[in-house]
Amino acid sequence: MHVQDAVHGYITLNELEEAVLDTPEMQRLRRVRQLGFSNVVYPSATHTRFEHSLGALHIANMFADALNVGEGRAQELRLAALLHDMGHGPFSHSTDHILNDHGLSHEHFSKKKIRNSRISDILQDHGIHPNRVIRLIEGEGRLGSIVAGHIDVDRMDYLMRDAHYTGVAYGTIDASTIIRSACIHDGDLVFDGKYLNALESLLTARYLMIPTVYMHRTSRVASSMFREAFRMLREDGDVSVEELPYMDEPELVHRLRNNDRSQWLMDRIDNRELHKIAVRNPENSGLDPAEREEELLAKTGLSEGEVIVDVLKRDESRTYDVPVLVEDQVRSLEQVSDLPPALKASLQRQNEIRIYTPREHVETVSAATEAV
Amino acid sequence: MHVQDAVHGYITLNELEEAVLDTPEMQRLRRVRQLGFSNVVYPSATHTRFEHSLGALHIANMFADALNVGEGRAQELRLAALLHDMGHGPFSHSTDHILNDHGLSHEHFSKKKIRNSRISDILQDHGIHPNRVIRLIEGEGRLGSIVAGHIDVDRMDYLMRDAHYTGVAYGTIDASTIIRSACIHDGDLVFDGKYLNALESLLTARYLMIPTVYMHRTSRVASSMFREAFRMLREDGDVSVEELPYMDEPELVHRLRNNDRSQWLMDRIDNRELHKIAVRNPENSGLDPAEREEELLAKTGLSEGEVIVDVLKRDESRTYDVPVLVEDQVRSLEQVSDLPPALKASLQRQNEIRIYTPREHVETVSAATEAV
Amino acid sequence: MHVQDAVHGYITLNELEEAVLDTPEMQRLRRVRQLGFSNVVYPSATHTRFEHSLGALHIANMFADALNVGEGRAQELRLAALLHDMGHGPFSHSTDHILNDHGLSHEHFSKKKIRNSRISDILQDHGIHPNRVIRLIEGEGRLGSIVAGHIDVDRMDYLMRDAHYTGVAYGTIDASTIIRSACIHDGDLVFDGKYLNALESLLTARYLMIPTVYMHRTSRVASSMFREAFRMLREDGDVSVEELPYMDEPELVHRLRNNDRSQWLMDRIDNRELHKIAVRNPENSGLDPAEREEELLAKTGLSEGEVIVDVLKRDESRTYDVPVLVEDQVRSLEQVSDLPPALKASLQRQNEIRIYTPREHVETVSAATEAV
Amino acid sequence: MHVQDAVHGYITLNELEEAVLDTPEMQRLRRVRQLGFSNVVYPSATHTRFEHSLGALHIANMFADALNVGEGRAQELRLAALLHDMGHGPFSHSTDHILNDHGLSHEHFSKKKIRNSRISDILQDHGIHPNRVIRLIEGEGRLGSIVAGHIDVDRMDYLMRDAHYTGVAYGTIDASTIIRSACIHDGDLVFDGKYLNALESLLTARYLMIPTVYMHRTSRVASSMFREAFRMLREDGDVSVEELPYMDEPELVHRLRNNDRSQWLMDRIDNRELHKIAVRNPENSGLDPAEREEELLAKTGLSEGEVIVDVLKRDESRTYDVPVLVEDQVRSLEQVSDLPPALKASLQRQNEIRIYTPREHVETVSAATEAV
Repeated sequence: MHVQDAVHGYITLNELEEAVLDTPEMQRLRRVRQLGFSNVVYPSATHTRFEHSLGALHIANMFADALNVGEGRAQELRLAALLHDMGHGPFSHSTDHILNDHGLSHEHFSKKKIRNSRISDILQDHGIHPNRVIRLIEGEGRLGSIVAGHIDVDRMDYLMRDAHYTGVAYGTIDASTIIRSACIHDGDLVFDGKYLNALESLLTARYLMIPTVYMHRTSRVASSMFREAFRMLREDGDVSVEELPYMDEPELVHRLRNNDRSQWLMDRIDNRELHKIAVRNPENSGLDPAEREEELLAKTGLSEGEVIVDVLKRDESRTYDVPVLVEDQVRSLEQVSDLPPALKASLQRQNEIRIYTPREHVETVSAATEAV
Repeated sequence: MHVQDAVHGYITLNELEEAVLDTPEMQRLRRVRQLGFSNVVYPSATHTRFEHSLGALHIANMFADALNVGEGRAQELRLAALLHDMGHGPFSHSTDHILNDHGLSHEHFSKKKIRNSRISDILQDHGIHPNRVIRLIEGEGRLGSIVAGHIDVDRMDYLMRDAHYTGVAYGTIDASTIIRSACIHDGDLVFDGKYLNALESLLTARYLMIPTVYMHRTSRVASSMFREAFRMLREDGDVSVEELPYMDEPELVHRLRNNDRSQWLMDRIDNRELHKIAVRNPENSGLDPAEREEELLAKTGLSEGEVIVDVLKRDESRTYDVPVLVEDQVRSLEQVSDLPPALKASLQRQNEIRIYTPREHVETVSAATEAV
Repeated sequence: MHVQDAVHGYITLNELEEAVLDTPEMQRLRRVRQLGFSNVVYPSATHTRFEHSLGALHIANMFADALNVGEGRAQELRLAALLHDMGHGPFSHSTDHILNDHGLSHEHFSKKKIRNSRISDILQDHGIHPNRVIRLIEGEGRLGSIVAGHIDVDRMDYLMRDAHYTGVAYGTIDASTIIRSACIHDGDLVFDGKYLNALESLLTARYLMIPTVYMHRTSRVASSMFREAFRMLREDGDVSVEELPYMDEPELVHRLRNNDRSQWLMDRIDNRELHKIAVRNPENSGLDPAEREEELLAKTGLSEGEVIVDVLKRDESRTYDVPVLVEDQVRSLEQVSDLPPALKASLQRQNEIRIYTPREHVETVSAATEAV
Repeated sequence: MHVQDAVHGYITLNELEEAVLDTPEMQRLRRVRQLGFSNVVYPSATHTRFEHSLGALHIANMFADALNVGEGRAQELRLAALLHDMGHGPFSHSTDHILNDHGLSHEHFSKKKIRNSRISDILQDHGIHPNRVIRLIEGEGRLGSIVAGHIDVDRMDYLMRDAHYTGVAYGTIDASTIIRSACIHDGDLVFDGKYLNALESLLTARYLMIPTVYMHRTSRVASSMFREAFRMLREDGDVSVEELPYMDEPELVHRLRNNDRSQWLMDRIDNRELHKIAVRNPENSGLDPAEREEELLAKTGLSEGEVIVDVLKRDESRTYDVPVLVEDQVRSLEQVSDLPPALKASLQRQNEIRIYTPREHVETVSAATEAV
């Protein structure tokens, strides 16, 4: 089976992969947009987790070829890439935050679905134990970092794909060279330092895409309004967090439109009558956004949903522990490149707290915040 | 206001256009996919009428610049391009066929919305009579063919855009040269024959995109299943044809999922369990598809929706009456190019009747058809 | 060895191919421009036969993979593609015409070089008889049409490459689908009719590129001036036709600049002071251009090189005998597509005779021609 | 006049610019490759200073539009961009180094040619004093940094163009946003800090292109062999440094091939029999490469040209004094971005000394160097 993809051209699937793709669990991803509410800013960004999953499989295959890992291992890598995002809820990262707030994650549900759906049987019928795929999704094992690591198929595909669909130039990475640079050294996956620039290009692409696309102020407002609407729906018992990974966007949108509390917020998102930023402050880790919202609602007399506190707190403290082979020595990317600390410092500095409110209340909320 | 578009780069809107864009009527188009069910074949084809409308405005502006039509006329052209598709229902062409079957059209609703929504006031507040925009959408007047003609902003944008999103190479046209070739001759819009190849490239692009994308057999099956499901919903009084241009896709999908008769078909589309082609026959203009369906259902004992007759009847008899200036004489594109008759003959020959049924009934339906 | 190519990305060469590439015979192609004098019109069209040869190898490899022809046959195909253009003289087609006028061809010299250079030894050291490669370059054998046929690696690469470098959109073809459509049927190479559109896209791409690039009126003038200059050089004994396939462009340019008769023409090409078209007439097959030139020079009193007669006589009478598999029957592309006759008729109609002269003599030459 | 460019699409020239373009001084740039000997690594990199100059004009025009500088100033900017590289010698940077070694520069000759060629008359006939254009090329005046600054038309065009022709992905910059971010603040050209990412994208693009393309080890070898060959030619009196900006590549290549001392080196470059790197050492600023070469020749008994010392000494100490407007305050790019110091440190660290010799002498030269 050959699927035409706007980013990678033809993507080839074998019979097993086609069977997996044809399950309702995978088909649901056709109705889960990759970039949530980014299309309020980039109208063309309507692509879905479905084509991203196919793209990830395609890149996994390129890694498997380059590393010559053998057919069995290649199959596991391809499947892990295909299945790694199956647990995403509607609007991807917008519901991922909700899952996280409840101690859950889309990865958790990806794994659960592999175990508990027909996919498990399909895999076993083809002699593959689901746990081998799950371990890769967890980033475990020698090749796990290809599926879940700093330089993985997920990141490589989404940077290229999001650039293609938003029209933002920055996602350009040199995927072929990155993959060519991968090699096995003393049994471990490392990247050849000769191609350091290709690795750095991934870092700079991600660095530039974060503020331009992923954290764009306007789509962040829409996403926050959605989360507030979802909270109301949930409090009214019309949805549960655990349902999210099993719903698609038409279903969730329908519920949000048909609940008395959430309806007005959903309508505003639909009609792009978005809240405005009333306040931007440096991130102050002590603050509880829900508390602050209540405080401000009380002070201003506004109604629920009219004041939304959004904490942008990106933790960039993780080291880029990407193994790079330099003169036959394995070193960390952080040791051989000047870029990681600079990029992390810059991203860290973008952390902040924003307070959103309808345009007509911006001054009220701004004044009330200063008073608090 | 600058909008980043994946096809054209930055698209610039003035205040008036931004006001028009921010109406619920235009924002609805964000939830109407450009290519209906084509994403069952081309997963990346999830783009919407919204960005197509912006792209059409962009190309209209290029025409206005090239022809130096004056600011007022340019504004009308841009607005007509922006608004020309406002009447499309969910899944675009899939519901357009339904509208047509009931003697309606999306153009009719585009015009109605311009007259009866807030857009009318916005236009008039800026000193533009809505009828001037409507006339352009009807293709009337000296410049009308830029908005609705053989070589118009609609076709130019959709060919480029559909190529970008499906990943199919054929939509490549030379928009800059086509626009440069446009000129005013004796008060009429004509195309300079020096650039005949650019015009021909539009014909061949469209010719190649029709079977590859627009009439692709598989998306045609999904579209036919949808139409059958819609018919059931309508017969049960859960939707009316006149509502279509005011609905978005989540709403219509929700209703199709919640009607007892249509639900199973919608589920099958969602899960990509599509009917298969049981029969392909040359188009026989006398046939009434509904009658044939009933006949076959009776003969096979299958249930409604299990036999779907699809008549592909593309009328390519229209002449390409595009005025081309050759040695100071205005002639028709048909007179100066060998391509139109060849392309039309070839497309005409693709007309046929197809009968779809679930995979397990293919033989039954095929046999029953032969018997009829 | 991996070579980065602007059109195909990484092209991979094995040790044998690298050895072949490193011969002076192949390296000379770095100094032979693909499109001769097209850069007087498309300044970016400075690409060479060298990268085209690599691109042809790359596409040959895709065919070999798709057809699963076995390693040995794949190697021969790749080599034939790499070596097929080795006999081109400076400015490619501009000198090819000269070779043809003397009963020679670049293919003849490609084959001669394979036999008589170190390449023959390299091939034989790797167990490959040069004749097997030569036969493919001649289009012989079951797979020969991949290297020299209507749908071959040469045409596929040059359409894509020339589009990339000129910036002309028309060269876009769907190479992946064309290659996927190739299959072996009853021992012969055929193309699956399911993908007829992909084949047709090659025809239309070529059809549009011919007038826009390959026969562009201005580069045709430059090319004719060059041929005239070459004739003078040859008549003075400063160059022979047989030397052409062994020279590079700096060498030939140097000679043309240093011969008293040809110098002024070469200077004019260098400074882009090109002759203008004085006369365009339908092609009249009886005419001998040299005779007509002399006649006009006599009549007008102009000097040699100031009147140049250019006969554009493209013979499009060949049938597109591309075997297409339709419903298990092998038919000719001409039988299953409406396009070939239309495209051929249109190209045939473009045949004509043009007479060039410096701008200041246009009227004189035009009048003299009418008098003749 | 419209020129089709592979990077920017149509580039429009007015009558004055066309007259300038048609001078022998500008036409010579068609025969001066943009990237010197980079095509030994990237075979497609055969583009010239000619199309780069057109591209620079195009970007200058975009700046002029965005800044609304008025027609007269726009014309000067466009001309300055078009003419800024006119003084480049054959192989661009390869001869630029030679000019620099003799206290000259291509900028010097660009200005000289503007003053002393027919271009001066053309400009004055159109009411433009050549000095106004020259001042812009010098980076002088309020808008000078658009032509010669850290973020200028030269850099923007060459990054995009070199990426297009080499096939290396890294040159992607967001030109439209960079240009949109330019504005006049208190009479000075500044960049709006809202678009800091677009500016940073230019820095990272350049940072990645330097090692990957501009300083690629293999093209650096070819370039060094060429310089050595040129030195021999000059010492023999067969060329002078001052001639370089007036020669084209065929002429210089011819001379190098016809001098007894330089011929063998030029042949080796032609046939891609390049020297290999015998030694790589950290850059040691005290070293005189000519002295070291002699020393090593003496010690090894090799002949001239067989040992070439190449000092890679990129001075990245310049501050990026790009004015960025942040909260209505003008600050330096260095103050508002973390990237400049990191990128400069990384580039600085790449400085080194390399010693090249034919493959068969690598060990000899390596040993001799250690002994010294």
